Amino acid sequence: MQAALSADVEQHADALANAARAAARRLAQASTDAKNAALRDAAARLRCEHRRLLDANREDVERATAAGESAAFVDRLTLTPARIDAMAQGLDEIAALPDPVGEVMSAWERPNGLAIAQVRVPIGVVFTIYESRPNVTADSAGLCLKTANAVLLKGGSESRATSGAIANIIRDAVTAAGLPADAVQSVDGGRDVVRGLLRRDDRIDVVIARGGEALKRTIMEESRIPVIKHFEGICHLYVDETADVDMAVRLCRNAKTQRPSVCNAIENLVVHHTVAATFLPQAIAALRADGCEVRGDAAVRAVVADVTPATEADWDTEYLDLVLSVHVVRSLDDALAFIAQHGTGLAEAIVTRDERAAARFLAEVDAAAVFVNASTRFTDGFEFGFGAEVGISTNRLHARGPMGLRELTTYKYQVRGAGQIRG
Amino acid sequence: MQAALSADVEQHADALANAARAAARRLAQASTDAKNAALRDAAARLRCEHRRLLDANREDVERATAAGESAAFVDRLTLTPARIDAMAQGLDEIAALPDPVGEVMSAWERPNGLAIAQVRVPIGVVFTIYESRPNVTADSAGLCLKTANAVLLKGGSESRATSGAIANIIRDAVTAAGLPADAVQSVDGGRDVVRGLLRRDDRIDVVIARGGEALKRTIMEESRIPVIKHFEGICHLYVDETADVDMAVRLCRNAKTQRPSVCNAIENLVVHHTVAATFLPQAIAALRADGCEVRGDAAVRAVVADVTPATEADWDTEYLDLVLSVHVVRSLDDALAFIAQHGTGLAEAIVTRDERAAARFLAEVDAAAVFVNASTRFTDGFEFGFGAEVGISTNRLHARGPMGLRELTTYKYQVRGAGQIRG
Repeated sequence: MQAALSADVEQHADALANAARAAARRLAQASTDAKNAALRDAAARLRCEHRRLLDANREDVERATAAGESAAFVDRLTLTPARIDAMAQGLDEIAALPDPVGEVMSAWERPNGLAIAQVRVPIGVVFTIYESRPNVTADSAGLCLKTANAVLLKGGSESRATSGAIANIIRDAVTAAGLPADAVQSVDGGRDVVRGLLRRDDRIDVVIARGGEALKRTIMEESRIPVIKHFEGICHLYVDETADVDMAVRLCRNAKTQRPSVCNAIENLVVHHTVAATFLPQAIAALRADGCEVRGDAAVRAVVADVTPATEADWDTEYLDLVLSVHVVRSLDDALAFIAQHGTGLAEAIVTRDERAAARFLAEVDAAAVFVNASTRFTDGFEFGFGAEVGISTNRLHARGPMGLRELTTYKYQVRGAGQIRG
Repeated sequence: MQAALSADVEQHADALANAARAAARRLAQASTDAKNAALRDAAARLRCEHRRLLDANREDVERATAAGESAAFVDRLTLTPARIDAMAQGLDEIAALPDPVGEVMSAWERPNGLAIAQVRVPIGVVFTIYESRPNVTADSAGLCLKTANAVLLKGGSESRATSGAIANIIRDAVTAAGLPADAVQSVDGGRDVVRGLLRRDDRIDVVIARGGEALKRTIMEESRIPVIKHFEGICHLYVDETADVDMAVRLCRNAKTQRPSVCNAIENLVVHHTVAATFLPQAIAALRADGCEVRGDAAVRAVVADVTPATEADWDTEYLDLVLSVHVVRSLDDALAFIAQHGTGLAEAIVTRDERAAARFLAEVDAAAVFVNASTRFTDGFEFGFGAEVGISTNRLHARGPMGLRELTTYKYQVRGAGQIRG
């Protein structure tokens, strides 16, 4: 039922996928030292060759500016010497982390004498699809290299010159370390090549995707490969009956306005009616001081009259911007039901001094990360202490929530015997 | 691009999926005691109501016999009092296992004082699709109940009366334990209802599928839901230069003929040329004594002249029957390359006395289970000591190889703070 692709596109996707598979097989046997040497050398080369990177980036920036992209977009796309240094530092930090590959997750002996070990191994070939942010190219390549996964990198087309230059520099370092260059490949070509790759479930083991609705639709329709999704987050902060109101104001402000453009920022604030009169005026004043627009239901507007009325659509909208919708509930049960209805299962938080309410919230809210008296913004690989941030998975299977290096691995069972047969 | 389904089918799939989702939410909060009570009561009811089960089963058996199904097929479909008792015992055994739900997988504190715990939780709604084996209905229901997943059971249509009767008895026990009956639902209706359910990625969290090519194709084309596949296994036994020849004969015989119809039986035997002259005559005689047909390449037939020539297709065929293809190699490298080319990544074994060869085989063979001097037939949840057998996954992600109860769970992060905000 899938759209036909041209022979050229098929051939190009085949070549990329085959080269990745062959590289993955060799890379899986690479020593930690060789992988770390490649990572450190890649960091050094990014710093040395910053001229070449800035030239490539200028091409992308000029094209994006001419195409009328927003200033924020162009800013995210733009490289500076400081940003190149930060990318290089990221690779050095990945080199310094422990290697998850080869880790014995558990080992045991059976009554018949079989010795079984569950050992971490690379997933194999990873296809990453992401927006036009140059640092993601370096991060993804570095994380996959450390975990011995061959990676196909497909950044937004607006960053293609920059991404290609970064990938080429990293490939040089990979080769210099005696590892296969095709461990890191930049995917050139448009959406058709992406479609072609999404069908290569015989060659590619996982797709890691982040992006907007169009990408999500393409992947849902096309991919025969398992996808680790990094999609939307509609997160809530619930201010319970017994909340410390000052703490609640602080958490609400942080969770909404510290960085509104990310998935773990809140979109909806839920407030127990008994604290509405004291909490809402302070919270709304603080949010407005940060430039945040507040929308609310009738109960909110009964307390703070000049709040914009919230529509039904507001409760299901990921603004990724300085807009917050506020809903008043009669009980913890109502709050839990509201979150179950509107949350996307990424991160949810409660502010409470009641241990029973906290325990119920932790147990009953079905989300990757559930917080008591802390900001949803901590839903992050670095903040969790994983040392590296692969992303924040909105899947339930394999990896859920903040992903570290381990989540880029799978396992195999190694079994040693002395001639045992099954009876 | 997907085929349109009738409104009736859509509505039926909707009703099943919605009821499962609602049940899953309640079931996730059920106590271990309540779940175990339901399992034990289900076991007792299966034993008590064996008349009702045998009557339902007679209907299926008569239909299958009239339809000209093979004797082996009808045998697998047939219930007897002993088989009913075995099903009941299976449920009692699941009740006796530790509950994985709520298990703290790891817990740590961050420098900022946040206390993070990674806690096992149910996946949610599981849709299982399997062949016409009545015991799988009871096993799947029991395993999902223990892990607090709501389950949609779709067995082969030839077993529909039996499956429905088993599911109804288990639902009665679930209700009696105060749990939602729709935690266990038998899916009636044909392939269209299955197609309808495979599109409900908003309601169903995972598909667990085992079956033949037609099912595989349907699922690949239709499913928007992550699938844990239990598909084919082309497994190898490699007899190395330094193998103990007696052990190799014993392992080869066990891995091929002890139960040829299962995925972890071997299909290809790979032999180092230096042991071919001593090993092959003994092995082939032993296999033939067990009724196994042997096919071989020219080097095999140079040793045992009356072996049927193997065709290229033989190396990629899962016989699931008493047929074995034998290939002679010049080196361990050739054996590894052959296995990489023809293996499906399920289970592979080496027979060797050379530790270097064993270590290379364990490291370089990319399969869920890799064995040294033991039969591939041990690739099994019970044999691994998991206490229960969910199946043997041919996925790389989430669960690989033998699956126990833990593999029917996911996790969430529970984070407790004292008002921390992100800087």
